[in-house]
Amino acid sequence: MESSAMLDQLFPEEKPGWRGYIEWENYPERKEAAAKILLSNKFTPSPEFQLVPLPQTNPVLVGHRWKEYHEVLGLRRIVDFSWETVLKEKPDMIHLLDFPYNGETPRAPLLAGKITDNKYHFVRNHGGVPDIDEDAFELEITGLVNTPVKLTMKDLKDASKFPQITVAVTLQCSGTRRIEQIQQYPGDGDELINAPWGEGAIGTAVYRGVPLKKVLKHACGGLKPEARHVEFVGADTYFKKNTVYNYAVSVPTRKVRQADEVILAWEMNGAPLPKMHGFPLRAVVAGVIGARSTKWLYRINVLAEPSLGPVQAQEYLYYTSQIGKHNVKYSNGFSIQNMPVSSAIIFPQEKDVVVHDGAISLRGWAYSGGGNWPQRVEVSPDGGHVWYAVDEDDMTEKHYHTWRLWTISVPVDAEGWIEFCVRTWDSSCNTEPTFVRSAWNWDLHVTSSCHRIKIYSINRSKPATAARLAEYARRGESITPITRPVEWSLEDPVECLTQRRKHPREPVD
Amino acid sequence: MESSAMLDQLFPEEKPGWRGYIEWENYPERKEAAAKILLSNKFTPSPEFQLVPLPQTNPVLVGHRWKEYHEVLGLRRIVDFSWETVLKEKPDMIHLLDFPYNGETPRAPLLAGKITDNKYHFVRNHGGVPDIDEDAFELEITGLVNTPVKLTMKDLKDASKFPQITVAVTLQCSGTRRIEQIQQYPGDGDELINAPWGEGAIGTAVYRGVPLKKVLKHACGGLKPEARHVEFVGADTYFKKNTVYNYAVSVPTRKVRQADEVILAWEMNGAPLPKMHGFPLRAVVAGVIGARSTKWLYRINVLAEPSLGPVQAQEYLYYTSQIGKHNVKYSNGFSIQNMPVSSAIIFPQEKDVVVHDGAISLRGWAYSGGGNWPQRVEVSPDGGHVWYAVDEDDMTEKHYHTWRLWTISVPVDAEGWIEFCVRTWDSSCNTEPTFVRSAWNWDLHVTSSCHRIKIYSINRSKPATAARLAEYARRGESITPITRPVEWSLEDPVECLTQRRKHPREPVD
Repeated sequence: MESSAMLDQLFPEEKPGWRGYIEWENYPERKEAAAKILLSNKFTPSPEFQLVPLPQTNPVLVGHRWKEYHEVLGLRRIVDFSWETVLKEKPDMIHLLDFPYNGETPRAPLLAGKITDNKYHFVRNHGGVPDIDEDAFELEITGLVNTPVKLTMKDLKDASKFPQITVAVTLQCSGTRRIEQIQQYPGDGDELINAPWGEGAIGTAVYRGVPLKKVLKHACGGLKPEARHVEFVGADTYFKKNTVYNYAVSVPTRKVRQADEVILAWEMNGAPLPKMHGFPLRAVVAGVIGARSTKWLYRINVLAEPSLGPVQAQEYLYYTSQIGKHNVKYSNGFSIQNMPVSSAIIFPQEKDVVVHDGAISLRGWAYSGGGNWPQRVEVSPDGGHVWYAVDEDDMTEKHYHTWRLWTISVPVDAEGWIEFCVRTWDSSCNTEPTFVRSAWNWDLHVTSSCHRIKIYSINRSKPATAARLAEYARRGESITPITRPVEWSLEDPVECLTQRRKHPREPVD
Repeated sequence: MESSAMLDQLFPEEKPGWRGYIEWENYPERKEAAAKILLSNKFTPSPEFQLVPLPQTNPVLVGHRWKEYHEVLGLRRIVDFSWETVLKEKPDMIHLLDFPYNGETPRAPLLAGKITDNKYHFVRNHGGVPDIDEDAFELEITGLVNTPVKLTMKDLKDASKFPQITVAVTLQCSGTRRIEQIQQYPGDGDELINAPWGEGAIGTAVYRGVPLKKVLKHACGGLKPEARHVEFVGADTYFKKNTVYNYAVSVPTRKVRQADEVILAWEMNGAPLPKMHGFPLRAVVAGVIGARSTKWLYRINVLAEPSLGPVQAQEYLYYTSQIGKHNVKYSNGFSIQNMPVSSAIIFPQEKDVVVHDGAISLRGWAYSGGGNWPQRVEVSPDGGHVWYAVDEDDMTEKHYHTWRLWTISVPVDAEGWIEFCVRTWDSSCNTEPTFVRSAWNWDLHVTSSCHRIKIYSINRSKPATAARLAEYARRGESITPITRPVEWSLEDPVECLTQRRKHPREPVD
């Protein structure tokens, strides 16, 4: 391995004030040198967490391999700065993966309101966090535009040049609810860990920025006729099979025509963009997979076809269920862009014991991308046979680009284990697949099947149950955990024998 | 706590040559003294294994509580002798619970033949193992018989007194396959741990002994008219809610009329009964829950109604699915006796990766109790839509009281995760409930729903799959575990781009 000092010279930061940003795409020789180093090293395998239970730790998973990639290239400081930023900006998350940082919103702040607090908004990074001074920053726009330009943050924020916009946008990782797929059918363990997300890799914020449409029009004089995709390049470093990249993805130029669907944002919920969320500038693309909303966005490259960046071309592909390690290719999955309708029950939670009087209250979220919005939410208390619709008064208001939070009280007579599930119908009458099995895919993306939870129902309106609960109260004991044995006798022996003699086990003749 | 020497005097062994046997039922004052001691002590709670994953250890679970019950009564030597006996007689089992000993048959010996080797036959004990000299042993027969008697082993083995019989009998713990219930819906965590059995709490042996019918007739002059149940009492010590008992259960007298269905056995597969299996004498009751086949059987008590022993009256009860900790009583479950039809796939196993050429071979067992036998076994490769019947040539022969082992090759085109399930139709056309949900019950007994396994199918007859397997072979790599990422590129970039340009992601217009 090279000495650390030599490595620092080999892959220098590109510009003063842009700490942690290494330019790779403009230097093929640099990519070759990095590949040589990567190939000559052994790396710690990613932790196995699909075929064995997840550890009960926080961080849940440790990204040894991605850290080591950075280390051998002399970029350990990026790893360290990233975790410092987590501790500063997002200390109270469920830290699913420490590096690259993947953090999930805990359940109480997830449903605290239709806007997610910056401190709790989920994060799915693909590399380290660059530390860029706003004054030093500039955005390059190049490719199939009539006039390539470079814009400073001062240019972008100049309302006389570009009209500003604020938009409430729900962003969702396509890995949201992946844990449901993993628990039933393990899949690809990517080099870059596909984190075992629960229902909290979704969040909503109000972003302020400028519509990309306006920037392309006013600063670049529009697009060339052959333009079809807009590539966003981020200052973070990404690795794929021993090649090193700057993060790059793209969206169709057609998407840019809706001014509020693709914005260049510097403000999140009234505050400057946190470093963890892309300071000083990020793309926010409504209605599509979160991976397109590129953070630390420093280059826009207009293309005649989708980006060849590995995040676009080799990741976030949607495969049919017979594709797997035995036959998977990049070209036999299609690229995930628009997000389908989906929803989740957040309260109660899986395996909760719910004591009630004949009705159980549930709360959750519902979302649809691709220009749709959640129109109706339905909850079933019996695994998907009978469905109850959420009253529209009990849903947060509609927006074009956000989720809706909902609450409902569902009649429940049954006791013991019951299965709730939720489905949402969106504005195009799309609804969700019934079972995880219906939509399992090798890369474990887009878990949009009906979210299901099992809870243990204790219906206090039943006399036998009320009597038992009173007995627990009298003894000052808790009925939970239900698996803990009862120390006292369940029934008076005489009563029991009387009942048994009334209905003996065997026929009399 | 009393001193150990004082305790030894308080609960002495009843007879010379009967080590580890304490008589409780004949001494109410002894039960009271024991209850006082038990109530004045705190015991380690049973390990929680339903709401958290099972440990990857062998023994899987440690029976601290049951050991401590024995210790405070001065009976630690029983605990020690039991484990010594495990190590001597059953060293290679899956030790589910170390005390009282519960051991499951590993999968290869489980399917080695229709008779299970004594070394591998499952064990579900409810107490410690007594160490009884055959010469000192006697069996007492009492209660509603015309002539109460005591019989030595010499009497019982005297063929001039009682005709001997050999019968092949499958015994099954009603907890077989309990893990399937636990994984979906946790239930009662009894004081005496209800072990998390897989498919191996079933086994078949040829027992030699005498029909109970003949003993009752020839030695006791028959039963009194009001006799309805035959209680078997074992020399092991059982605990229930601070009361101490000798193990006691019963079966209907009607059952005894079939000479080959209830036998008093001293030989197992041609060898003397192992200590772990009841030496010197046990009951073997065909077609019913294994718990009735009392080990270390020293007393038979003929009754007018079922045994009031807690194993009969308060355990092994079958509840409806809305009964649980919130409302359970002894009298609202019915007593489990006859075992229903059930079956299991033993090979392949859950989450196996199976490489094949269009057909997958499966092997397993099928059983029915209650006087029935497995008549037809069917396997589905698609979760229960299409079923293939096992050829009768591929099943072991029928017996009145045993399982049948089966094998089948099922056509499989599909790749990726598929779900196999099995169901058996017995001689009364009974078949199995479809899902675990269909038959879940609070005490987690009788898991007789269709056994389901998920396997990952790799069909070598598919060209893309054959090519990928060849690539693994060329590189000297294994495709398993499937969750481990592939280090090399999945597709040539030019080929990939050609495919993508042929079918672009977005419409042209």
